[in-house]
Amino acid sequence: MESHSNRYCVIMAGGIGSRFWPISRNSRPKQFLDILGTGKTLLRSTFERFRPMVPESNFLVVTNAAYCDLVLRELPELTREQVLCEPIGRNTAACIAYAAFRLRAMDPAAEMIVTPSDHFVGDEAEFRQVVDECAAFVEGNGSLMTIGIEPTYPNTQYGYIQADLSARVTEDICRVKTFTEKPGIEMATAFVESGEFYWNSGIFLWKPDTIIGEIRNSLPDMYELFESAAPYYNTPQEEEHIRRIYPECKAVSIDVGVMEKAQDAYVRCSRFRWSDIGTWGSLYEYSDKDPEGNVVPANVALFDTKNCVVKAPEDKMVVVENLEEYLIVDSGDVLLICPRGNEQNIKKYLEEAKFRKGDRFI
Amino acid sequence: MESHSNRYCVIMAGGIGSRFWPISRNSRPKQFLDILGTGKTLLRSTFERFRPMVPESNFLVVTNAAYCDLVLRELPELTREQVLCEPIGRNTAACIAYAAFRLRAMDPAAEMIVTPSDHFVGDEAEFRQVVDECAAFVEGNGSLMTIGIEPTYPNTQYGYIQADLSARVTEDICRVKTFTEKPGIEMATAFVESGEFYWNSGIFLWKPDTIIGEIRNSLPDMYELFESAAPYYNTPQEEEHIRRIYPECKAVSIDVGVMEKAQDAYVRCSRFRWSDIGTWGSLYEYSDKDPEGNVVPANVALFDTKNCVVKAPEDKMVVVENLEEYLIVDSGDVLLICPRGNEQNIKKYLEEAKFRKGDRFI
Repeated sequence: MESHSNRYCVIMAGGIGSRFWPISRNSRPKQFLDILGTGKTLLRSTFERFRPMVPESNFLVVTNAAYCDLVLRELPELTREQVLCEPIGRNTAACIAYAAFRLRAMDPAAEMIVTPSDHFVGDEAEFRQVVDECAAFVEGNGSLMTIGIEPTYPNTQYGYIQADLSARVTEDICRVKTFTEKPGIEMATAFVESGEFYWNSGIFLWKPDTIIGEIRNSLPDMYELFESAAPYYNTPQEEEHIRRIYPECKAVSIDVGVMEKAQDAYVRCSRFRWSDIGTWGSLYEYSDKDPEGNVVPANVALFDTKNCVVKAPEDKMVVVENLEEYLIVDSGDVLLICPRGNEQNIKKYLEEAKFRKGDRFI
Repeated sequence: MESHSNRYCVIMAGGIGSRFWPISRNSRPKQFLDILGTGKTLLRSTFERFRPMVPESNFLVVTNAAYCDLVLRELPELTREQVLCEPIGRNTAACIAYAAFRLRAMDPAAEMIVTPSDHFVGDEAEFRQVVDECAAFVEGNGSLMTIGIEPTYPNTQYGYIQADLSARVTEDICRVKTFTEKPGIEMATAFVESGEFYWNSGIFLWKPDTIIGEIRNSLPDMYELFESAAPYYNTPQEEEHIRRIYPECKAVSIDVGVMEKAQDAYVRCSRFRWSDIGTWGSLYEYSDKDPEGNVVPANVALFDTKNCVVKAPEDKMVVVENLEEYLIVDSGDVLLICPRGNEQNIKKYLEEAKFRKGDRFI
C-alpha cells in the first residue's frame, strides 16, 4: 500500500439524518457519532480507512458550515482549508461539483475519490485492494468509476448498479448498464436473483476534469454557477462565492443528476461487507451481538432479554428484564423505548417531540 | 382544628428502603423522594399532614445521622434540636424509645403521636378527625392507641390489628385483641373476610410515660440503656450518650417488641385511604393514571402503551411504544426497564449493580 501524492479523498459529511433519533440530532448527525460502538465516530473511521491510501493533506471534507468545528475536532490532522463549508445542503451533485472545481484548481493532475462519511466497511484490506484497483483504472483511462457491492438480500433502501457482464474490462470491472434508485421489493428481489445488479456504495473515483465535463453535459446550470467562481477557488474569496452559488443550485443526487446519464461509467464488482447503516435495523445487523442476540454495551445488565439494541451513555447503569426485539436508546436528554421493527416510526416520535418541545430535542 | 401546645409529633424517618431502586438510594431513601409525583417529598407531605394539629416547634424527626441535613433541608421550619440522630438503625422500638425519653424530659405533660415518614394518606380531613379523636382518648385514659385501616384486599405485606368488636369503647375505638405480622395469603384472606382485622398503619398515640412503662415491661434491657442517659436528654451530652446506647440496643419493631405484649392497647378503626407505598405496585395503585392506565409524568409520550409506570427526570423527553405492564425508571445514572409484576426482582437488580460497580449505584 502506498500513498499517492496526486490522489485525493473527498469525504461527504453534510448529512443531517434523523433516522437515529434520539442519538442523532441536528447538532450532531450520524457521521459524528460512534453509532457502531467501535470507539470511533463514523467520520473518523472513514478517514482512517482511506489514510493508508491518501496523504493526510489530500483529504477534503465537505460539510455544512455548522459542522466545520465538529469536523476539525474529529479530524485534527486536517487544516481549516481542507474543510469545504456548504452554506446550505444541496444533495451530492453540488457537493461533488464544489470539491471537483476546488481540486482541479489545486492540482490539475488530481485523482479524486468520493466517499460518504457515515457507512460501514467490514473488510478493510479487501476494501483497499478494490480502491487501488479502481484508482489504477481511472488513472489509465480517465473514466467514471463506481464501486458496487454484491447484494446479499433485496434491500429496498439502496440504489442499484446494473453491470454489463458481457462487457468486462477486467475480471471485476464492467461497464455500467443502468443506475436505479431504491426499487420496490419485487424489483429488488429480481435484481438480486439476476446476478447483474450491485448495491451502489456511493463511492466514486474519477478525475476532476472528467466529472466536471459530465456535470457540464447533464447539469449545465450547476456547471455555470461553479464555473463562474473559477478565479476564486483556493483564494480568500472562495467561501463568499460558494455562499452566492449554493442557494442557486438544484438539489439533486450525483446518481440521478449525472451518473444515470453518463455514457462511460464503470463498476468494480466487490464483495467486502458494507452497509450504509441507514437504520437501527442495519446497525443491528452489522454490530457484534451477545449470545442472546443483543447489541449492548458493557454497562447494560440484561435478564431474559433477546435481540434488543441498547444505547446509553457509558457511565449509566442500565438494567432490562424480559424484552424481545426492542430498541432502547438513552441519549441523555431523551429516552426512546420501542419495538426494533418500528423504526419507520422514528419520524412520528420526532414529530411528537417537536410538537411538545419545539426544536429542543431535535 | 386547633394546635395543642403539649401535643408532639414524632416522625420516624430513618428508613433506607431499597424497594424503589434505582430512584431510592442509600444517599436518598424513599421518604426524601417525591415518589408519588405530587411535587412534595413523602417526608414533607407527612409534616404538612400533621402541621394543622401540632405546633411546628413540637415536631421531632428521628433519622439516621447521615440524613440530618436532608431532613432540615426538607423541613426548614425545624431547628437542629428537633432532629434526633440515630448513629445506626435499630428498628422502630429504639427509635420510639429515644423519642419518648427525650419528650418526657422536655415536657412531662406531653402527648406523643408517632408516625412513619413515607406513607400515603388519601383523605386528609378524615385523617385529622381520626387523629384528634385518638388524641382525646389518650388524653383521657393514658392508654396505647393505634390506628387501624379497614382492609380493602388481603395485602400480605402489612401487619394486621385484630379489633375486639365486642369491647367497643366508642363507635370506632375498640380494644386490641392481637397484633399480627405479615400473614400468608390464606390467612390474610381469612383476616379480611372476618371483618375483625385492620391494617396496622404504624401510627401510634400515647403519653411518653405510658410507652416507657411498656418498654420497661417488654424490653427491659432497652429501657435500662435509655434510662442510663436520663440526666442528659436535652443537653449537649445527649448525642454522645445516644451514640453509646444505640449499638447495644436490640433491633426490633415496636409491634413485635412491645405492642404484641401490651395489655391495654386500643385501635381506632378507620376508613381513610392509606398505603405504606412499600412497592412500585402500591405506588401504581395510589397514583393518578391516564385513560390507558399509565402512571406517567407530562414529559412522557406513549404510543400503544398500557398500565405502565414511568419515572424520569422532569427535563427528559421519554418516548415509549408498545409496552404493557412495564416499569420504566430513569434515575439519571441508572435506567431500569422491567415488567411491573417483577418488583420482587429489584433486589436481584441491586445485587447485579453492586456486583458490577460496587456501591456506586446503590
